Amino acid sequence: MYSTEQLADMIQNRLSGLYLEREPANLYQPIEYTLSSGGKRIRPALCLMACNLFSQDINQAIDPAVGIETFHNFTLLHDDIMDKADTRRGRPTVHKKWNDSTAILSGDAMMIEAYSFFLKLPSHLLSEVLPIFNQTAIEVCEGQQYDMNFETMKEVSEASYLEMIRLKTAVLLAGALKIGALIGGASKEKADLLYQFGINAGMAFQLQDDYLDTFGDAKTFGKRIGGDIVEHKKTYLLIQAIDLAPEKAWSILHRPSISEAEKISEITSLYRELEIDKKVLNAIQHYYLMAIDALEHLGLDRIQKEPLLNFLDQLKGRQF
Amino acid sequence: MYSTEQLADMIQNRLSGLYLEREPANLYQPIEYTLSSGGKRIRPALCLMACNLFSQDINQAIDPAVGIETFHNFTLLHDDIMDKADTRRGRPTVHKKWNDSTAILSGDAMMIEAYSFFLKLPSHLLSEVLPIFNQTAIEVCEGQQYDMNFETMKEVSEASYLEMIRLKTAVLLAGALKIGALIGGASKEKADLLYQFGINAGMAFQLQDDYLDTFGDAKTFGKRIGGDIVEHKKTYLLIQAIDLAPEKAWSILHRPSISEAEKISEITSLYRELEIDKKVLNAIQHYYLMAIDALEHLGLDRIQKEPLLNFLDQLKGRQF
Repeated sequence: MYSTEQLADMIQNRLSGLYLEREPANLYQPIEYTLSSGGKRIRPALCLMACNLFSQDINQAIDPAVGIETFHNFTLLHDDIMDKADTRRGRPTVHKKWNDSTAILSGDAMMIEAYSFFLKLPSHLLSEVLPIFNQTAIEVCEGQQYDMNFETMKEVSEASYLEMIRLKTAVLLAGALKIGALIGGASKEKADLLYQFGINAGMAFQLQDDYLDTFGDAKTFGKRIGGDIVEHKKTYLLIQAIDLAPEKAWSILHRPSISEAEKISEITSLYRELEIDKKVLNAIQHYYLMAIDALEHLGLDRIQKEPLLNFLDQLKGRQF
Repeated sequence: MYSTEQLADMIQNRLSGLYLEREPANLYQPIEYTLSSGGKRIRPALCLMACNLFSQDINQAIDPAVGIETFHNFTLLHDDIMDKADTRRGRPTVHKKWNDSTAILSGDAMMIEAYSFFLKLPSHLLSEVLPIFNQTAIEVCEGQQYDMNFETMKEVSEASYLEMIRLKTAVLLAGALKIGALIGGASKEKADLLYQFGINAGMAFQLQDDYLDTFGDAKTFGKRIGGDIVEHKKTYLLIQAIDLAPEKAWSILHRPSISEAEKISEITSLYRELEIDKKVLNAIQHYYLMAIDALEHLGLDRIQKEPLLNFLDQLKGRQF
């Protein structure tokens, strides 16, 4: 078994300097810049972990894992243009450092490159895993579109929100696990169980991110507490509040001359009053248990399960 | 043998209404809009023609041909954002009709969809043709980046220009032919000859487009004559003029208060004076002959060659 750090190192080594020499430089430099900006490499690590559950030799999964990481970083690059974000991982975003056209085109090239990492797989594996990657990729786009749509909608149902985070966040974690498992020789049934593990872990993670944005500790969360409230972001928490007490919620959010600090404080109190903090913690727990349940059904030894259980533990409070 | 019109109909039928019902609607409607906006369907027709040279049954090539057309239309959609173009095929561009974010994300989804059309191929064919599609796709991005770079460069060499049009225009025609041929069962050698045919036909087409923009007949060309001159576009013609008579060329282009009509007239005279009109016609002829030469080496009957020879003839004066 490899440790998460060993897996992240393998990914880093494969990715490092890959686009330094390629021409035209202003197409490939933003790709190198994006891929060298760090990040926890969670998705490719999951892909390799899943492969390692079924095979000692994980070499065949390294390139597809890198392809998944490349795709993930492509989505961040294009999302940053759409969100007009100025920084990412403490550095200027590509569209700020270069310009929108370069960011669009380099992102396109990056997505094509993501596919290229799959092409060395033997035919039977390529035919098996590429449809999963492709389905995942289109779902991530759908999730991003729903997320953008929600910004201008007055009301969003809980079910729509859960579907959005499934698409935007969970399916890529799940797809990475399933692809790794299949490359490692897993049966379709076992690969599907790992997919379920990934979906549930991804849901738990995203809901926890929503929770921590309001109820977290600024020191460990890494982002400003209350940022979602200030942005009126339709998180799981705000959606519940709008459902349970729409007039009160909107009257706070839209009160003229309310300060940001007052808004954060009053909405946070409203969440507590409506017991939304408890509801979201219950939902997180539900998805964690579902993830563990999927893992149990795989019939693995305790030692085999360890990396994925550690991953679940590490999810708490982590941005990835 | 199928006629070009029959082939275009097959493509149209496969494409029609494909994205009408898919959700989220504002992700998929721009794709439907883009794919229903017509165009000559040249690339997929070439793909099917190439398949038909080696097989009576071209059904297996229809989806990949549609994938190539989808990819081509994706590039137009994103190019239109980068070029800030307002109209395409007589209709508002996607980023004008919707907005930039929708155009970026729908384009991304469209590129992923392009790949999905390849996934039904049997494994051995998928492994054979997908690397060709992928290489072609990345080259088209490189060509677009070079084209954008040229806008701000004072001097562009003839060799760089020819490489740019090879990447931006020729490789996709060539790739469509090669992919179709391989699906039809062609040997690698024959598929490569069709690739060469496509490259040379594409080069001839693009140079002819440059020529016609200055020396064409407004009635048949379909665009305003002299548009490239007014935009100072670094076409094959302007590159030659800047190489042969840089001071004269720049003094006309940058003369204060020169009218557009005067600029077109004086630059056109300069081209004639420097015999650039003859030089570009020679270059076009050269590429046409190379295309025909590649076709001759395929060892086909006259009747088999006919669709591709007709295609070469039709290239003249056509926008595609």
